[in-house]
Amino acid sequence: MKPSEYDLEDPIVAIATALVPSALGIVRATGTGSIELAAKFFSRPKALLGAPGNALVHGWILGPGSERLDEVMVSVYRAPKSFTGEDSVEITGHGGPATVLAVYRALVASGFRPAERGEFSLRAFANGKADLTKAEAIREIIEAKTDEARSRAADRLAGSLAAEMTAIRDDIMRALAAIEVEIEYPEDEETTSGKLDETLIDGAARRLSALASAWAAERLFQDGARVVLAGKTNAGKSSLFNALLKEDRAIVSDAHGTTRDWLESRADFLGIPVRVFDTAGFRETEDAVEAEGVERSRALAENADVVLYLVDATEGIVGEDAEFLLAHEGSALPLIVVWNKSDRTNAREPTLPANLSGLPVVAVSAKTGSGVQALVAAVSRALLGDACNAAEGTAKGTTRGTRAGAPGSERQKDAIERSQAFLEHALEAAREGFPMDAVAQDLEEALGCIGEITGETSSADVLDAVFSGFCVGK
Amino acid sequence: MKPSEYDLEDPIVAIATALVPSALGIVRATGTGSIELAAKFFSRPKALLGAPGNALVHGWILGPGSERLDEVMVSVYRAPKSFTGEDSVEITGHGGPATVLAVYRALVASGFRPAERGEFSLRAFANGKADLTKAEAIREIIEAKTDEARSRAADRLAGSLAAEMTAIRDDIMRALAAIEVEIEYPEDEETTSGKLDETLIDGAARRLSALASAWAAERLFQDGARVVLAGKTNAGKSSLFNALLKEDRAIVSDAHGTTRDWLESRADFLGIPVRVFDTAGFRETEDAVEAEGVERSRALAENADVVLYLVDATEGIVGEDAEFLLAHEGSALPLIVVWNKSDRTNAREPTLPANLSGLPVVAVSAKTGSGVQALVAAVSRALLGDACNAAEGTAKGTTRGTRAGAPGSERQKDAIERSQAFLEHALEAAREGFPMDAVAQDLEEALGCIGEITGETSSADVLDAVFSGFCVGK
Repeated sequence: MKPSEYDLEDPIVAIATALVPSALGIVRATGTGSIELAAKFFSRPKALLGAPGNALVHGWILGPGSERLDEVMVSVYRAPKSFTGEDSVEITGHGGPATVLAVYRALVASGFRPAERGEFSLRAFANGKADLTKAEAIREIIEAKTDEARSRAADRLAGSLAAEMTAIRDDIMRALAAIEVEIEYPEDEETTSGKLDETLIDGAARRLSALASAWAAERLFQDGARVVLAGKTNAGKSSLFNALLKEDRAIVSDAHGTTRDWLESRADFLGIPVRVFDTAGFRETEDAVEAEGVERSRALAENADVVLYLVDATEGIVGEDAEFLLAHEGSALPLIVVWNKSDRTNAREPTLPANLSGLPVVAVSAKTGSGVQALVAAVSRALLGDACNAAEGTAKGTTRGTRAGAPGSERQKDAIERSQAFLEHALEAAREGFPMDAVAQDLEEALGCIGEITGETSSADVLDAVFSGFCVGK
Repeated sequence: MKPSEYDLEDPIVAIATALVPSALGIVRATGTGSIELAAKFFSRPKALLGAPGNALVHGWILGPGSERLDEVMVSVYRAPKSFTGEDSVEITGHGGPATVLAVYRALVASGFRPAERGEFSLRAFANGKADLTKAEAIREIIEAKTDEARSRAADRLAGSLAAEMTAIRDDIMRALAAIEVEIEYPEDEETTSGKLDETLIDGAARRLSALASAWAAERLFQDGARVVLAGKTNAGKSSLFNALLKEDRAIVSDAHGTTRDWLESRADFLGIPVRVFDTAGFRETEDAVEAEGVERSRALAENADVVLYLVDATEGIVGEDAEFLLAHEGSALPLIVVWNKSDRTNAREPTLPANLSGLPVVAVSAKTGSGVQALVAAVSRALLGDACNAAEGTAKGTTRGTRAGAPGSERQKDAIERSQAFLEHALEAAREGFPMDAVAQDLEEALGCIGEITGETSSADVLDAVFSGFCVGK
């Protein structure tokens, strides 16, 4: 079923925490009559029915035959003071999968409908509790893989993007109002092309352009990147792999062989969630078939966002290294030469052959860890590219709170770009002396795009696209 | 640090839900001053400080530099009305790992100490909110792998074992009081051996014995069992594996190859959490080396609790089958012959050779699913063994709520057996005319064992053993 077809009032229920053994678990329910329905299988129905909003009630959830399923605290919310704007209950019980499921099933058996994806958030949106940028920010927060990504999503949840959209919308509306006065009474005044407040619209277009540009970095912090370690067997890939994970401030940092072909691990590179790939799993056989190892690095590198090519500094660049690096020349894929074991040479600086001197080089010692932080920074810079200057400060956490708004999804960025294009078209039309109603139409189209972002003018298709990507329970 | 060495008052914090992307997540904190401490990094400190107990307060958790970390609901509990008996807060925010961690770190930075394992439950116990059997039941509920296990643990959380312990303790104390009167005034009355109320103590010993016997089934429902599918390649192991999982009402039913050597999946056999093993991963090579396949089944079977040996009913028992089954004879390990593809033969009953006629046989069709439920029931019976009659009714869910108390851990069962042994020794001593103070000492020892179970007389070692097995956050 599509989110746009969801019933927006009936009592629904969902499991809101992961079905993994843990201390606590939550089953949440919302909808008209949800408190009354929940009271039917609660050990203290009167306490629940009589509870004011924002109150916690202690008791047992009862199953068939009044079996005591779990001892819980029920959070009671009364409309409109709840996440969804409806009467709601959140049942916090013990976090065992079996007990969370038992409570959930008891609610379903009692008449709650299992919630669809994003149905709680859709109701919050439909009941005016959150605009679309805030609803989307909830999903972004849940999916954030690093604290930086979490922080950026929290800004949007706090309304940074919504505020920026409102400000731009207001500017466009002011310009539009001036034009519409013009159109309504054309015979009363002399028509001039100067009536479009170009400064206002140009300013709005610039702000939209800045927002659209911020998306590249934003997406990187959300989706992350793939970093592949390449190089000869004895260059120290495995040591660097481990050294990079030590720099890790990641949420899930367990190194694990996901396949038999390579090692993969997740790390946090100055806020960018990074998957680091190492062909270390093949080291033993690589010794025998060295050429094959290089071939394999090459294949992995094709799917990378950055390649780290390790060179053993004590040997310098030898035949196979040069072969790989020359083959890479002309590729758009960023590559950084990692001058490993630099603690074991006397040379102060890495020395690349003249025909490779354009490649960035970072000297490290995977063993002592020296240079690894510089390498992480170099990778971040390579990944952020043009977005680097804008994002670097925040990535280092130095300018938190002063960050400008940014879109949180491709959908928002697309609408921002379309809005900007309409504004630029309006400016062009005004300058070329087109009739004001054509200019006004452009401005209205631009407003429509902004309404799509905030949800004011979203079509069913837009809502479906947004909410069907949510998890159940949100 | 050992649980017995934990500070029992300072403000502690823990993540109480799994760090897996989900709709909601909980960070919980408890201890003297915990509400005041939490208010320091909350967007609405006055609302939090002024909240009555059992109230929900909406706001933002603030990080360094007042960065808004997450929009949350804070559950406020005031001593003694809380899980731990202390002032407590539960912060329910969005369930992204990064956001849960950010909130947790903010609390740690503000002065909360990261909680040790089981520290919340230990405080609940220390503050008289739960006896030891209830505290342990919380852990059992969280770890329950099937609804049956959950239900049995919930009984203990509701106090079934505690009530039984109290009743037995009261009987022993009555008997002891009668003796102690006897000992205090020996010169005033004639000493008779009849002064030990043997009926009372014999009854108590029988109740303890019944509880101890119930542990075998209880442990099976908690820990589960390993069922290995053996048999020739074409006997249909893989089809039966899948058919068994269809009967699955399990929590985690994803079939996955955990190693390259076999397939493993979890299923729920009438409440018993079962791990089913199939050597299906080897089928392709088995065709080539059939004998090796049988060898492999044999090796897996050695670690099984029940072996299901599949026979292709259309072929009957052939050489390798007979070889395997005869080799198994005399083993204590339960084995069930599964007469598969029974829908494709005309024979009404499976026919085993005379020398194997003692083996249980179940006719199934893995393809149509017929007989599979009967097989699941046969496996459950084989696993429950002697405990079968006692547990079967409840396993089928027919007598829920009328189930007698049972221990939930080896620790409890051991103490029950020790208590019973002291009672029997007391009876023997009394019958043999030993002095009453020796009998009284036995009764006091028996009481001590019961006190260990409920926590009334638990040593630091017992508490350490119980609470160190808990997860953090509980």
